[in-house]
Amino acid sequence: MLYKYLKEQVYEANMEIPKEELAIVTFGNVSGIDRSAGVIAIKPSGVPYRKLKVEDIVIVDLDNVLVEGNMRPSSDTKTHTLLYRNFPSIGGVCHTHSTYAVAWSQAGMSIPNLGTTHADHLVAPVPVTDVMTDEMIQGDYEHETGNQILDLFNRLCLSPEEVEMVLVACHGPFTWGKDPGKAVYNAVVLEEIAKMAYLTMQINPEVTSIKQSLIDKHFFRKHGKDAYYGQSNC
Amino acid sequence: MLYKYLKEQVYEANMEIPKEELAIVTFGNVSGIDRSAGVIAIKPSGVPYRKLKVEDIVIVDLDNVLVEGNMRPSSDTKTHTLLYRNFPSIGGVCHTHSTYAVAWSQAGMSIPNLGTTHADHLVAPVPVTDVMTDEMIQGDYEHETGNQILDLFNRLCLSPEEVEMVLVACHGPFTWGKDPGKAVYNAVVLEEIAKMAYLTMQINPEVTSIKQSLIDKHFFRKHGKDAYYGQSNC
Amino acid sequence: MLYKYLKEQVYEANMEIPKEELAIVTFGNVSGIDRSAGVIAIKPSGVPYRKLKVEDIVIVDLDNVLVEGNMRPSSDTKTHTLLYRNFPSIGGVCHTHSTYAVAWSQAGMSIPNLGTTHADHLVAPVPVTDVMTDEMIQGDYEHETGNQILDLFNRLCLSPEEVEMVLVACHGPFTWGKDPGKAVYNAVVLEEIAKMAYLTMQINPEVTSIKQSLIDKHFFRKHGKDAYYGQSNC
Amino acid sequence: MLYKYLKEQVYEANMEIPKEELAIVTFGNVSGIDRSAGVIAIKPSGVPYRKLKVEDIVIVDLDNVLVEGNMRPSSDTKTHTLLYRNFPSIGGVCHTHSTYAVAWSQAGMSIPNLGTTHADHLVAPVPVTDVMTDEMIQGDYEHETGNQILDLFNRLCLSPEEVEMVLVACHGPFTWGKDPGKAVYNAVVLEEIAKMAYLTMQINPEVTSIKQSLIDKHFFRKHGKDAYYGQSNC
Repeated sequence: MLYKYLKEQVYEANMEIPKEELAIVTFGNVSGIDRSAGVIAIKPSGVPYRKLKVEDIVIVDLDNVLVEGNMRPSSDTKTHTLLYRNFPSIGGVCHTHSTYAVAWSQAGMSIPNLGTTHADHLVAPVPVTDVMTDEMIQGDYEHETGNQILDLFNRLCLSPEEVEMVLVACHGPFTWGKDPGKAVYNAVVLEEIAKMAYLTMQINPEVTSIKQSLIDKHFFRKHGKDAYYGQSNC
Repeated sequence: MLYKYLKEQVYEANMEIPKEELAIVTFGNVSGIDRSAGVIAIKPSGVPYRKLKVEDIVIVDLDNVLVEGNMRPSSDTKTHTLLYRNFPSIGGVCHTHSTYAVAWSQAGMSIPNLGTTHADHLVAPVPVTDVMTDEMIQGDYEHETGNQILDLFNRLCLSPEEVEMVLVACHGPFTWGKDPGKAVYNAVVLEEIAKMAYLTMQINPEVTSIKQSLIDKHFFRKHGKDAYYGQSNC
Repeated sequence: MLYKYLKEQVYEANMEIPKEELAIVTFGNVSGIDRSAGVIAIKPSGVPYRKLKVEDIVIVDLDNVLVEGNMRPSSDTKTHTLLYRNFPSIGGVCHTHSTYAVAWSQAGMSIPNLGTTHADHLVAPVPVTDVMTDEMIQGDYEHETGNQILDLFNRLCLSPEEVEMVLVACHGPFTWGKDPGKAVYNAVVLEEIAKMAYLTMQINPEVTSIKQSLIDKHFFRKHGKDAYYGQSNC
Repeated sequence: MLYKYLKEQVYEANMEIPKEELAIVTFGNVSGIDRSAGVIAIKPSGVPYRKLKVEDIVIVDLDNVLVEGNMRPSSDTKTHTLLYRNFPSIGGVCHTHSTYAVAWSQAGMSIPNLGTTHADHLVAPVPVTDVMTDEMIQGDYEHETGNQILDLFNRLCLSPEEVEMVLVACHGPFTWGKDPGKAVYNAVVLEEIAKMAYLTMQINPEVTSIKQSLIDKHFFRKHGKDAYYGQSNC
């Protein structure tokens, strides 16, 4: 089996989706990249997690050409490859239909930064894309989904290292990270902060973003050169 | 044991109901049809899932006459048989009392198409029947429940192949599909989109259906001759 | 061990509480009665379910006098015995702090009959008691809790055979049935209809009780001489 | 291994956090104190519960100086030690990011005492701190978090024996108790009453605190010299 290590890593990351209850049945997909080989490994399209095996993971190159595998890759593959091509520091991408993150996506609203659970992970609200035009939808849809994400990050001057998650309007979340496991970790965190923000707004609809000093404190105790959260060898 | 294969298939599909948490205690029932033999297999009435065995599954014909089995069939049997007689392409029917789908049924509201999770599965809102008249309720109730579904599909010009789910007002969901497993799959999906739509409306009460181009894109990437989601051999 | 059978039955029914997630830690209690012996078996006070053993179950008589056991009976024992003395047909009583039923109790509102899941089990709304007076609270509190339930049933002309559940205002639910297992079954059903009613009211605050003909249809297909739900030998 | 007993006790208490679903991934931490030795044991920073081992537990003294261990202690350690220094009767402290308690913290609202589940555990609302000033956040942040709690308790004249839980605004809950296990028990109870209060306010936004006589009745049947809940040898 070619790309054995990459396939195993991506398989394990995909199996976190049902384990963490981030999607039902066949929904969602995780990929990982081998940048030296110029290929990604990704879940095959429409295969239930219960039946997924390591050898089912599909290898495609960054132009979406099949390199290895007996199955069709995820229908969202073009969104993944566009992100890898434009965010050179990322090593894994995760797409789920987790319930609360989807609800915010369907509501067309970014998730405000309402507390330290959110601030521990990103300095900004979780951004939401615009609704796509009919032309984009009827064109190369999954490629345009990636474009919507890139345009949003450009427009808001967001860095993919500091904001590792996004909501695609009317659809659901994409997350990424240094490797496939971190991409899924971010999907778990996103679902939790989406639920917390939902409940907070129900309890107190007047609430607004926490203050900038608290956002910075929490983000930078976990990230950057002065971080003191976690173990240095982690 | 007669109809062994059909009973096993229907037993397995029924056991998905507690596993997927689609109903508590004894609620819900799944059936499957053998069209060449003109019989259906269905859960016996009021038996807890914990105690259900393959040999408990009851065989009745399409006129609701008992063909094989020691137990009384589900009290909802007449609804199932009416659907099989009128929807010739379906192979399985599932009825649950899943919490969010019941809430929309009790609210008497169809579930609007608010995102791609919904659009992946059906082009329309999940339709809801009218409340039955007193005469229908006091008459052949379970048969009339089926009639309400048929009338609704006729009135809205819905195809049972394109819309495999319905909410019976004040009651709960019925779903169907090419076989009993697909009927339960649709019940799982319905519960998830019912929950997502609930949360979306709580976050943003102004939200309305997504645009037609997006509905079509997602539905037809999974269904019909140009579908490219999933594996062709699935 | 005296009353071995009764203790085992009550132990099993108590262990359904954590299994069905009807209460956390030590909350909740189930009892059962041996009417010929004039005693009840009940959970000991404050013992976590994880540590509960059959031999911990306490036997008291209907005047709340300890008959057998090394532990103190549930602090709610006097509520149980008052119900047994006044509802001669019941064989088991269950008290939980299940989340949605408690929320309706704390809201001081009865649960309206919004659908067939509710109507399958009772013809009325789930009734809620008045808030107790200071005198009752400072007096024989647990005995007065039982009195509140009896007064409510008298005032509303409810039969404990037709309505096997009640909400005590500011507190939580009590349910009962022909035996301890049925009492817990009713607690499971109550929690589910409390959740369904909550969600229904959030989706459509205008919704009101379903029509009487539908209530009667569902209740009497499960109860009484013309019932046709379930197996006659159940 | 030094402090073996304390490490084991703290390890077990930490492992209750994922088991009781009080936090995801690495969030949350529990500590315990050996007052005669003047040290506490606490979870290492950023270690996932899945990988946590007894020997990873870190020992620090009450001035936050590392005494034993190969890992960095929780980033919240200074909050823990400040509580131990000022609340001499407590033996364990627990911090979680449990969903409903965080939502109330993010909403900046104390949890009103709406029923007996709450009153069984504390006589007051669950108090919430003020939002910290920028100076406190940019200063010795985790120490100031403890100061916010102490100031709140002083201002409201609350006793840490009678109120064993607090919400830190924009952040989440801290709980404590006579030992680490009791601190986690209180975190479990807090999450449940936070959820119950949330649902109650959604059902009936007009609801207010239950009457004082009921609060006193429930609290003092579980606490103090006249308590009659539980087993005297517990």
